[in-house]
Amino acid sequence: MGRQMTCTAPVNIAVIKYWGKRDPTLILPTNSSLSVTLSQDDLHSRTTVSIAPEYDQDRMWLNGIECPVSSNIRLVNCLQAAREQRKAMEAADSSLPSWSTWGIRIASVNNFPTAAGLASSASGYACLVYTLAQVLELPLTPSQLSRYARLGSGSACRSILGGFVGWEMGKLANGEDSLAYQVAPETHWSELEALILVVNDAKKDTSSTVGMQTTVKTSTLAQHRFASVVAERMQQMEQAIQDRNFEQFAKITMQDSNQFHAICLDTYPPIFYLNDTSRTIIRIVTTINELCPEIQAAYTFDAGPNAVIYAPKQHMPRLIQLFTYFFPAAHPLPSEEFFNDPYHCVPTGVTLGETLPSEYESLRDTFSVMPVGSVKRIIHTRVGDGPRVLSDPAASLLGDDGLPRSL
Amino acid sequence: MGRQMTCTAPVNIAVIKYWGKRDPTLILPTNSSLSVTLSQDDLHSRTTVSIAPEYDQDRMWLNGIECPVSSNIRLVNCLQAAREQRKAMEAADSSLPSWSTWGIRIASVNNFPTAAGLASSASGYACLVYTLAQVLELPLTPSQLSRYARLGSGSACRSILGGFVGWEMGKLANGEDSLAYQVAPETHWSELEALILVVNDAKKDTSSTVGMQTTVKTSTLAQHRFASVVAERMQQMEQAIQDRNFEQFAKITMQDSNQFHAICLDTYPPIFYLNDTSRTIIRIVTTINELCPEIQAAYTFDAGPNAVIYAPKQHMPRLIQLFTYFFPAAHPLPSEEFFNDPYHCVPTGVTLGETLPSEYESLRDTFSVMPVGSVKRIIHTRVGDGPRVLSDPAASLLGDDGLPRSL
Repeated sequence: MGRQMTCTAPVNIAVIKYWGKRDPTLILPTNSSLSVTLSQDDLHSRTTVSIAPEYDQDRMWLNGIECPVSSNIRLVNCLQAAREQRKAMEAADSSLPSWSTWGIRIASVNNFPTAAGLASSASGYACLVYTLAQVLELPLTPSQLSRYARLGSGSACRSILGGFVGWEMGKLANGEDSLAYQVAPETHWSELEALILVVNDAKKDTSSTVGMQTTVKTSTLAQHRFASVVAERMQQMEQAIQDRNFEQFAKITMQDSNQFHAICLDTYPPIFYLNDTSRTIIRIVTTINELCPEIQAAYTFDAGPNAVIYAPKQHMPRLIQLFTYFFPAAHPLPSEEFFNDPYHCVPTGVTLGETLPSEYESLRDTFSVMPVGSVKRIIHTRVGDGPRVLSDPAASLLGDDGLPRSL
Repeated sequence: MGRQMTCTAPVNIAVIKYWGKRDPTLILPTNSSLSVTLSQDDLHSRTTVSIAPEYDQDRMWLNGIECPVSSNIRLVNCLQAAREQRKAMEAADSSLPSWSTWGIRIASVNNFPTAAGLASSASGYACLVYTLAQVLELPLTPSQLSRYARLGSGSACRSILGGFVGWEMGKLANGEDSLAYQVAPETHWSELEALILVVNDAKKDTSSTVGMQTTVKTSTLAQHRFASVVAERMQQMEQAIQDRNFEQFAKITMQDSNQFHAICLDTYPPIFYLNDTSRTIIRIVTTINELCPEIQAAYTFDAGPNAVIYAPKQHMPRLIQLFTYFFPAAHPLPSEEFFNDPYHCVPTGVTLGETLPSEYESLRDTFSVMPVGSVKRIIHTRVGDGPRVLSDPAASLLGDDGLPRSL
């Protein structure tokens, strides 16, 4: 009889960006980074791991489709690291069952569509190693576990923890000190919320893995960022989070997003992730921040044109009005596909897409309403907790036969 | 009876970019820069300077419209520097006429429309100080004269010379050693040609003067560029020019354009000059350079979305075919407003905008033809000489009364 567990893990969006590996195999970064874990109520990966003595080989299904395990070296590294630790435990205590010799079956799904434009590797690998550690009963702290997640995908190590999470780059060649740690739990600053603006983009982006390596090889500005910029920003950002100082948090977030895209542009040949819609979003946020007595919102962009807007809860209703006004939906609002207001923050009487909040009226003079569909979807979420164990057997993605259940 | 001279001066396009002043009044830069002087046969400013004892005040007309001299501090600085030198000459030699006390009248026109999107301040100020030096008989070498041009507009100092021109940033606080110098004359590498792709853009750009100061104040990457990147690139670029090594010339040109836009993006709030059309041009150039055994072309972008493409003469016919294919004109080609082939390089039998050169056929798989009008105009030109004196009296822009002639 085998063992099985099912867990969920969250997405995280960095405010100090990770871009560049000093060791591509161990996925050791050229600089520390820091992210906000987003709520699993809105976005998550769900993974079932099943082990049994009769499984003849390791197998994995991603969103229902089987992916050969052996050809995915990062996945193999994750499984091997967990098994080796289990094996050492069994060697030290002969009363432990020999789970390290059993076959592993994995099924994973994301609750957000690929069309959301969100990288699923962070939540996916975090969920895999978290669930695996539960199944194999590995006695690991979240920081220790983050090392295994890092072997799958660098930024996955930060999805092992909730709230505000740092990833210390470390100094050791074996990566033992390259770990995620919690700067503050989600309860420390629960009013921090996020809007994800999914931007329409025809072009295929440069993959992060290839792009990073080219940046490290060719950008002189990137070397300066790694050596002389990030360490100070990490300290300032941790302080801003401790102080719940949104102004400071927002400024560093925007500067670091800009600098990440600057080193992409300084890469040869240059890498572009921002398009004209992304730039309009940046200009709109810059304008409202200059217009209002207090800073309203911070933008950040990963390796693609989608914006994540961080803002305090009280600014969200007018930011949603603002973005739905300038980036009209293809269908009448509210629309499940475009924006569904899970936090019920649209003021009564407001029809999204039709009016600008009075504070932002003057933006009409500077900005035109963008073409319908420039932004494909808006997702409203907030800071959230780390991976969760699902005790309901109905949540399992694998049947007793170790094959995906029909859901 | 007064004195009058008329001259023309060329446009220059930097391959090592100037962006940042260490002294905004004297216009002393944070780094050295290097440019190619473009042919005055295609693009130039023409300026008449007239001096006479009876002129009661200094007056100036730009493209036929009077611009008050006293409110333009940079213009005032240029006139004052030239007059002071003349005054010192007169003090030393009493036989010299006292031209330093006479009024000055200036009329200047550009032969390229504002719609060409080319900064006219470089050719304009170079032409002004060059003509003024002729009228006042100032015994100045071009490098010495470049200091006066610099007071009007930094990059104007490089339009005082033909061919390949460096601007040594200098170290002195008074700017005496911040001078332009000729790296090589236009005859050294006359097969180097340029295409200017004038890109359609709705948005108003951040002015260079304001943008530069914000970059110097807020970009940490810019500080690294100034201190540790440019000096080496200047040496490599001068060597590439001496060797007529287009591969090296092209690579540094593209890298330095990218880095200039990278420090703009690292500015807070960020400055954007490239738009989606600019980025498509960069991708197309990158693709053909990777496709062909030898490097085909180099792109460079100043403070706006327009591209300047440098390429050896032999590649120009197919580059023109390439760009007119992917960036179709609003009207049938050849069209005076879009592209008029002054160098007769379009191969017989080729209808521009309809066919791709066979070498670049595979680009169809990666790139779509862009919307009509994304590029508004294409100008073909080449490396050219420095300012010229026009001896034909019919070239004068001012009548004997010191007022603009009707042309």
